[in-house]
Amino acid sequence: MRLHSLDLQNIRIHDSFWSKHVDLVRNVIIPYQWEAMNDRIPDAESSHCLENFRIAAGRAQGKFYGAVFQDTDVAKWLEAVGFSLACYPDEELEKLADGAIDLIAEAQQEDGYINTYFTVEEPDGRWTNLREGHELYTAGHLMEAAVAYYQGTGKRKFLDCMCRFADLLCETFGIEDGKIHGYPGHEEVEIGLIKLGCVTGRGKYLDLAKYFIDARGVGENYFLKEMSRPGYKRIFPELMNYQPEYSQSHLPVRQQTTAEGHAVRAVYLYCAMADLAEAYQDEELLRACETLWENMTQRRMYITGGIGSSGILERFTTDYDLPNGFNYSESCASIGLALFGLRMNQITRDAKYMDVVERALYNTVLAGVALDGRSFFYVNPLEVWPPSCMEGTSRQHVKPVRQKWFGVACCPPNIARTLASLGQYIYAVDEEKKALYVNLFVSNESDISLGDTETHVKLETEFPMKNYVSLRADHVPACGMEIYLRVPEYAQDYTVCVDGKAYAVMPEQGYVRVSVGQDCEICVHFEAPARFLYANPEVRADAGKVAIMRGPLVYCLEEADNGQNLAGICVDTEKGLEEVPSALFGDTVLLKASGQRIVGHHAGEGLYGTKRPEMENVELTAVPYPYWGNRGEGEMLVWIRERL
Amino acid sequence: MRLHSLDLQNIRIHDSFWSKHVDLVRNVIIPYQWEAMNDRIPDAESSHCLENFRIAAGRAQGKFYGAVFQDTDVAKWLEAVGFSLACYPDEELEKLADGAIDLIAEAQQEDGYINTYFTVEEPDGRWTNLREGHELYTAGHLMEAAVAYYQGTGKRKFLDCMCRFADLLCETFGIEDGKIHGYPGHEEVEIGLIKLGCVTGRGKYLDLAKYFIDARGVGENYFLKEMSRPGYKRIFPELMNYQPEYSQSHLPVRQQTTAEGHAVRAVYLYCAMADLAEAYQDEELLRACETLWENMTQRRMYITGGIGSSGILERFTTDYDLPNGFNYSESCASIGLALFGLRMNQITRDAKYMDVVERALYNTVLAGVALDGRSFFYVNPLEVWPPSCMEGTSRQHVKPVRQKWFGVACCPPNIARTLASLGQYIYAVDEEKKALYVNLFVSNESDISLGDTETHVKLETEFPMKNYVSLRADHVPACGMEIYLRVPEYAQDYTVCVDGKAYAVMPEQGYVRVSVGQDCEICVHFEAPARFLYANPEVRADAGKVAIMRGPLVYCLEEADNGQNLAGICVDTEKGLEEVPSALFGDTVLLKASGQRIVGHHAGEGLYGTKRPEMENVELTAVPYPYWGNRGEGEMLVWIRERL
Repeated sequence: MRLHSLDLQNIRIHDSFWSKHVDLVRNVIIPYQWEAMNDRIPDAESSHCLENFRIAAGRAQGKFYGAVFQDTDVAKWLEAVGFSLACYPDEELEKLADGAIDLIAEAQQEDGYINTYFTVEEPDGRWTNLREGHELYTAGHLMEAAVAYYQGTGKRKFLDCMCRFADLLCETFGIEDGKIHGYPGHEEVEIGLIKLGCVTGRGKYLDLAKYFIDARGVGENYFLKEMSRPGYKRIFPELMNYQPEYSQSHLPVRQQTTAEGHAVRAVYLYCAMADLAEAYQDEELLRACETLWENMTQRRMYITGGIGSSGILERFTTDYDLPNGFNYSESCASIGLALFGLRMNQITRDAKYMDVVERALYNTVLAGVALDGRSFFYVNPLEVWPPSCMEGTSRQHVKPVRQKWFGVACCPPNIARTLASLGQYIYAVDEEKKALYVNLFVSNESDISLGDTETHVKLETEFPMKNYVSLRADHVPACGMEIYLRVPEYAQDYTVCVDGKAYAVMPEQGYVRVSVGQDCEICVHFEAPARFLYANPEVRADAGKVAIMRGPLVYCLEEADNGQNLAGICVDTEKGLEEVPSALFGDTVLLKASGQRIVGHHAGEGLYGTKRPEMENVELTAVPYPYWGNRGEGEMLVWIRERL
Repeated sequence: MRLHSLDLQNIRIHDSFWSKHVDLVRNVIIPYQWEAMNDRIPDAESSHCLENFRIAAGRAQGKFYGAVFQDTDVAKWLEAVGFSLACYPDEELEKLADGAIDLIAEAQQEDGYINTYFTVEEPDGRWTNLREGHELYTAGHLMEAAVAYYQGTGKRKFLDCMCRFADLLCETFGIEDGKIHGYPGHEEVEIGLIKLGCVTGRGKYLDLAKYFIDARGVGENYFLKEMSRPGYKRIFPELMNYQPEYSQSHLPVRQQTTAEGHAVRAVYLYCAMADLAEAYQDEELLRACETLWENMTQRRMYITGGIGSSGILERFTTDYDLPNGFNYSESCASIGLALFGLRMNQITRDAKYMDVVERALYNTVLAGVALDGRSFFYVNPLEVWPPSCMEGTSRQHVKPVRQKWFGVACCPPNIARTLASLGQYIYAVDEEKKALYVNLFVSNESDISLGDTETHVKLETEFPMKNYVSLRADHVPACGMEIYLRVPEYAQDYTVCVDGKAYAVMPEQGYVRVSVGQDCEICVHFEAPARFLYANPEVRADAGKVAIMRGPLVYCLEEADNGQNLAGICVDTEKGLEEVPSALFGDTVLLKASGQRIVGHHAGEGLYGTKRPEMENVELTAVPYPYWGNRGEGEMLVWIRERL
């Protein structure tokens, strides 16, 4: 029996670190994105995604505009709204969302089909291009949104729409004769079907998800077959030389051992694999998930939790290939990594997965959105020199400043739905065994149903500024409960007190288990000083360099604090790091270090010479990576040369 | 009056360094490329370029295949053959080439037009796509080839064909009403027209070249206008978001101050600008050339003489943006750089241009071809880690091993024609002033016409292995002559003896001038020990690193000598470099250095940790960059971390 997250209704976050980001979702991001989706943000890239629905619904005339998966921006926005309404009821917002849902329902075809691109542009092209058409991908996001909206509001209209669509999919796809024996070019519908199946109790949706997973990469590749059919219409020019690895269809999923291809596709697939491994008690599938997780997180992940290092095709490359200045590391890929890790944690009850989830959430996911909630990164570099981030070059995907919106539907609403659902990452619960797992150190008050008891838990902390956590549990079940406290990988000297008394126990699978017989207060403290980190020497890009972390936060140098030419800096690791609380970025700890830097500017001097550049001592200031790029355009650097 | 190169007939190279490469041209490369152009090399990419001519000539049936500029492989091959026959008459080869020329003549249209793509595929599309169609580019290479073949064999057939084509161009393009007011999307025809004009004495060909140069980038951009015409047919998907900088048409050429866009296009343009600046005594144009040269060589050039750092669009990016592991640095761009530098040297008589020409020829150009003459680099990286050079990633253009051929016509025959014409870089002559400039230290015997005298010059050297050069001049004109000896930028303690007597004189514009009244022997010796070089600190990619050079040769580390993980190595510059003569690569000097490297292999260990990798002392072996990749696939590194 897997663990599950708390319903968002039952958790109220009021945290010194996260609230300023999470609160942005309802106060700024959701309204802002509504404007963006209506093309009302000046100087932002055009969206047109609501207009596409209006056209498909017959309310407006016109042509489809945007990526073929443009509908997903609406879907992810509605999912974020669903999550938000669960925590913070808001009549006006609900009305707005109900209106969007009415629109979707009107755009739904008689047989249940929803997709504005194919409805408007290619009504005869349905399901003829699973490789590039993104119909199933789009369906999955709509299903996820419908489930979130149902859970957040109790309203079934959207859910019912999506059940009709899912029923159509069940009739259309499958192993049976007469059905299409294909699978999605971009995985996601599997997640949507699983959620829809769980919330409605309709096993056939899970069965279809299982079909998609089982069929993938088996026998002749579906996409290569599809491409060779007469009339096959190419959509994405970059997919000219299509490799099945791109969509993880190169091998049956159970035989895959390395994270390959488009990173977002990959992690969405792995999420579904994990869910299905648990649902069908499929040990082989779970082993495949574990193997893929290990490969991805131990050989192909940036220290920031970024994955997918190639700018071309947004994909994984090879073990230890993690260049810093031209990487991709899409925000959505780290979101998917967190979703996969969450599932693996809930299935295996191993805290190691949450170490990676935390790394992704605190660094890459959070870096994806500006502190004001109004601009976003799609790509998350670890080193930026703005003049070199030029259009039409090998670094064209790297942006030195966040963009207001993206013509290609994707990251901004994905970040919104992730922040809006942060509550699902904090705890995991085993109702049967009356066990509560504390995974993230985020202040909150929660009502936790443990069988017939509603236990009230209050977690207070100033983490990651300070490494104290207090957990007050009231209305503990009469039979007692187990509280599993995650010991993060970076903790030294982890101590636990229960009602003021030291509680010494060895962690198992990364958790200290506290058996609680009555209402109590648990205090946790751990040492986690700021530290220098080295990459595995196989990572060529980081040779001779160090990164700085404090708790789960990666730090970086910015031009705003350290001047230009950050590459010309080296840090003296022997002299250590000084922690300096600061009001910068709301409230943070800056890290000061000693180092050296090249003296002066050298533009206009000769290009190559025998004279070693002169160095001078300098004090360095590092800031949390998630906050970089909030002070105008400038250089940024995570991996700093070490002075030896 | 500009200097000129010697006719290739008058110079016989027999050099300890160059002959093994130059001799490959007639012994291996020319026959090999003939086979490649006939699609007879097993497992090589298809060429089809001669078959295209057969189809255009009506000798064969079929469809055009290849890049729209596929004809240029034939042109460059014929140019190489022309150069080769000038030095080494070869009846059989001449017969083969005559046959190819007959084929070209048959493929020529009634009105003089030659282009197999447009003739076969788009007979109505002539001149409608100057941006992408490459007709003028192709014409230029054919003209250069015709001139070389005429000069090498005295045969006029090809030259006459190309004059007819040039006449057609003169009727078609120009400022006059009724002519097309366009200019080539890829510069090259200007060079061809200038050569054709000079050899035939027809000023109108130079005038047309001048028109193309003068019109470029003036007023409304021709290519943007062209694209907006109905029926405009896109050829290259990568040129979707066309920027005029790509083809140096963003500004009138005299106003351009930075090297922009596609690097080969740029340097071919600059060559023509230099020629025309001299031909029309256009000071403004010469100033523009000087400014562009300075920008390119002092801010945008690799230490290897590579230019054009972006893999996407093969283009210049911005000052000091010179990444090592994913750069482009096309072989042809360095060839064009050498051609531009040669012209600037002959116009200004400043040796600084030859320093760069020498750098490009000894390093990037020579690296472009394997020691056996049978495989080639298009892209010349400064750092290679083979597993990361994957198709469909940001490093897809970087190849760890030379390829047998390229489906896209380009570098291999360009390298061939460059090696075959090495003689034109060694000396420059001012007949009027009876002056001889010695630019490259390459052993040869030459007959140099100085007015009515034929002076015989014999240069002997083991450069770059040893830095002694002896120059014997016989039949010196009665009125005497001036010999200008280039003092290379890396020379320390340059000494000159004339007939055994020390000759002390300060160099001017990089030359020591020796006034010679009679037959004599001049001996030059200079100190040029192996040295470590630093990049300008503005080059972020080289911070904390050194490169190694000896004379004009850049050195690199290879896996074959130094094991895997070259990034994990640092070199102890204080301990210096030891020069070790070796029979490797025919005959070379290896460089030994002391350093440290990371101990052991770490694949499979954790990705990030607090423990500094252990280092061990190690002796390093560096080999000349032009010879890298001749011992199988492996890592290679030019910029090495410095141990401080």
